[in-house]
Amino acid sequence: MPRSFPLSRVYQLLEPGPVVLLTTSRRGRHNVMAMSWHMMMEFEPPLIGCIVSGRHLSFETLRRTRECVLAIPEAHLGRQVAGIGNCSGRTKDKFAAFGLTPLPARHVAAPLVAECFANLECRVADARWVDRYNMFVLEVIHAWREPGVKAPRTLHHEGYGRCAVAGERLRLASRAR
Amino acid sequence: MPRSFPLSRVYQLLEPGPVVLLTTSRRGRHNVMAMSWHMMMEFEPPLIGCIVSGRHLSFETLRRTRECVLAIPEAHLGRQVAGIGNCSGRTKDKFAAFGLTPLPARHVAAPLVAECFANLECRVADARWVDRYNMFVLEVIHAWREPGVKAPRTLHHEGYGRCAVAGERLRLASRAR
Repeated sequence: MPRSFPLSRVYQLLEPGPVVLLTTSRRGRHNVMAMSWHMMMEFEPPLIGCIVSGRHLSFETLRRTRECVLAIPEAHLGRQVAGIGNCSGRTKDKFAAFGLTPLPARHVAAPLVAECFANLECRVADARWVDRYNMFVLEVIHAWREPGVKAPRTLHHEGYGRCAVAGERLRLASRAR
Repeated sequence: MPRSFPLSRVYQLLEPGPVVLLTTSRRGRHNVMAMSWHMMMEFEPPLIGCIVSGRHLSFETLRRTRECVLAIPEAHLGRQVAGIGNCSGRTKDKFAAFGLTPLPARHVAAPLVAECFANLECRVADARWVDRYNMFVLEVIHAWREPGVKAPRTLHHEGYGRCAVAGERLRLASRAR
């Protein structure tokens, strides 16, 4: 079972640059896309910048509903992540097509993804650069994490489906948060 | 020897979210900081968003000179990367202190880092969100890459010096760039 995860530590999930799934919901229809163009912008409250192409159905839904969930998959979900990136929610229920389980979130209509080890409930905090760069600034309002996953094997996309997997961990003598 | 690398493929270096070194130069003094809060914003010309804390000397230098280099280290440079993050260029010549070799760039005064497998020469393309979020939009104007490094063991920071290392590679059946 996932547990609530402190907002002050959300950056530890996204700073390493994993592929994430972005879920949205509108008029009772869930959708999900894969995304790698995101960054942390502030520790607390956690702010996340991300770029969503206007070609995606999720772009319009995110702009209108101003809510989403960022779910972080591990490498064993690679086939589903690639499949999600290869089709559109306009013609397919991607949760059903790829065997992913939508779970109700606490604060937003967009669903959590049960199979992902972390889920971040987000609201759009700043849409002023949507027209200029397709950039949304998201604020994480609640975070969930499976406590058992200590060293997640996240995916790091290198183009055209090639992904590096986070494996070995190093401990550097860093004083930086 | 590094070779010029096509600008159209720069996203393949940064999309996976590696720790990067950001170098600057002002009045003949080089400086370098470590950074994980960055994202791709456009394929070509490559645009990169990044957040640089106002506490860093690099913030003021980047704002004034509007130039930098993003250099990507591999895990064997972990000790140096952590050391760079633990001190300030106000009191130390970090290139000398950590045994890194600055090389002249082609288009900017900021130096390349010889020990890094990739180096991206950048100009500030948009500073309008510097005051709001400490966010710079960089345009990559020239890229360099060591052709021999096929699967770089990049660092992915998870907080307080803990890093995941990119290791195993997966090929997913993705049609997405």
